[in-house]
Amino acid sequence: MRLGKVRGTVVSTCKEPSLTGVKFLLIQFVSEDGDLLPDYEVAADVVGAGPGEWVLVTCGSAARQHSGYESRPVDAAIVAIVDTVSLDSGSLYDKREDFS
Amino acid sequence: MRLGKVRGTVVSTCKEPSLTGVKFLLIQFVSEDGDLLPDYEVAADVVGAGPGEWVLVTCGSAARQHSGYESRPVDAAIVAIVDTVSLDSGSLYDKREDFS
Amino acid sequence: MRLGKVRGTVVSTCKEPSLTGVKFLLIQFVSEDGDLLPDYEVAADVVGAGPGEWVLVTCGSAARQHSGYESRPVDAAIVAIVDTVSLDSGSLYDKREDFS
Amino acid sequence: MRLGKVRGTVVSTCKEPSLTGVKFLLIQFVSEDGDLLPDYEVAADVVGAGPGEWVLVTCGSAARQHSGYESRPVDAAIVAIVDTVSLDSGSLYDKREDFS
Amino acid sequence: MRLGKVRGTVVSTCKEPSLTGVKFLLIQFVSEDGDLLPDYEVAADVVGAGPGEWVLVTCGSAARQHSGYESRPVDAAIVAIVDTVSLDSGSLYDKREDFS
Repeated sequence: MRLGKVRGTVVSTCKEPSLTGVKFLLIQFVSEDGDLLPDYEVAADVVGAGPGEWVLVTCGSAARQHSGYESRPVDAAIVAIVDTVSLDSGSLYDKREDFS
Repeated sequence: MRLGKVRGTVVSTCKEPSLTGVKFLLIQFVSEDGDLLPDYEVAADVVGAGPGEWVLVTCGSAARQHSGYESRPVDAAIVAIVDTVSLDSGSLYDKREDFS
Repeated sequence: MRLGKVRGTVVSTCKEPSLTGVKFLLIQFVSEDGDLLPDYEVAADVVGAGPGEWVLVTCGSAARQHSGYESRPVDAAIVAIVDTVSLDSGSLYDKREDFS
Repeated sequence: MRLGKVRGTVVSTCKEPSLTGVKFLLIQFVSEDGDLLPDYEVAADVVGAGPGEWVLVTCGSAARQHSGYESRPVDAAIVAIVDTVSLDSGSLYDKREDFS
Repeated sequence: MRLGKVRGTVVSTCKEPSLTGVKFLLIQFVSEDGDLLPDYEVAADVVGAGPGEWVLVTCGSAARQHSGYESRPVDAAIVAIVDTVSLDSGSLYDKREDFS
């Protein structure tokens, strides 16, 4: 899984039928220093993540392990909202500080 | 999934038998700033995307989740035509403006 | 799938038993401008591609969708010989011109 | 598999239900010279790795081969704690020296 | 599959139980010019490759197609020892010359 930040929303009316009801968020990945990378992924949100939150994005067939997603053509999913990231060099991220 | 723009078409007469009838579009990926990247993918089109449209491309085994594609040797598929991409910093893409 | 050019052949006598009879071609990938990239893949040829031809390479589990390849440890396969690649900016590749 | 070093921990209370009880470690990848790369992965720990240890990280569907992980949306797992890495040019890593 | 050179061995006593008896080799990838790249993979050896040999490495679920590896958390395997790599521009590698 990789760490990313919720940056926005992708809306589509014309899509593969099984994608109806799936919420697509644009997630910009975060470096090991906590900086935003130029790399992003449009991921299905299965945990109700909100703007600016740090999340864990799972890629590949793992994104279809969530109940009801087994046959959806999804290759990325948000599977966790991050509370804290603690490194040996100190705290990288604490949601309470970020949203206080 | 990643955001891309339909740039063209790839035609092949000599191909793996199960690929007969599959339409291959060349999709150039788009950065998080909306710029075209040097990176592209030839993807099976299952939603009827047209030239210049922004689309969502799914990769890996996800590309074979579309009905009838389960056994086709396809590793990328266009699964949605994008209407809008809205970021916290403003609108990145709006199909109505792009095609007006 | 990605566009590549057949550059050569890889021969091996000592290999995983199920790979017997599989032809391995070295495919150098092509950029969206038609230039050769430093990136390559050794792919199983299931369509009879020849030297210098442009092909479509499928990666991952898709490479095992071809009949008889379901249990072979192959992660890349040539699944089509390209006739033409047409972009909005003009023709990128036409096999008849390339081989005339 | 790739070689990485355990750098820290990612904690999340709001996550996909099947991830309950999974320990997420932040693993920074190591180059073939033994240097830390800017590349990292958040991986499920199934072997009880500790801070600073070198580990083997497996990615993709391989991460769900561990007993009990078959249906968890996990795309990376720590599957081994490394004792030694020996190259033709000499020893790259020896856990006893690193932790003595 | 990608071309790589056997550079060394990775040893681990504390690992996922199903990895017992699997031999892990460190493979450094080779460019299309035959040069060593900074990129490497730790791969399960199923063909008995030796130091300095060029091999074919298969990645992803393909690495678990070898008999007995179906449920092992392995994402890379050495599936062939390379004899020759012949490009249109000449011979890139010949094992007999390399080991003579």
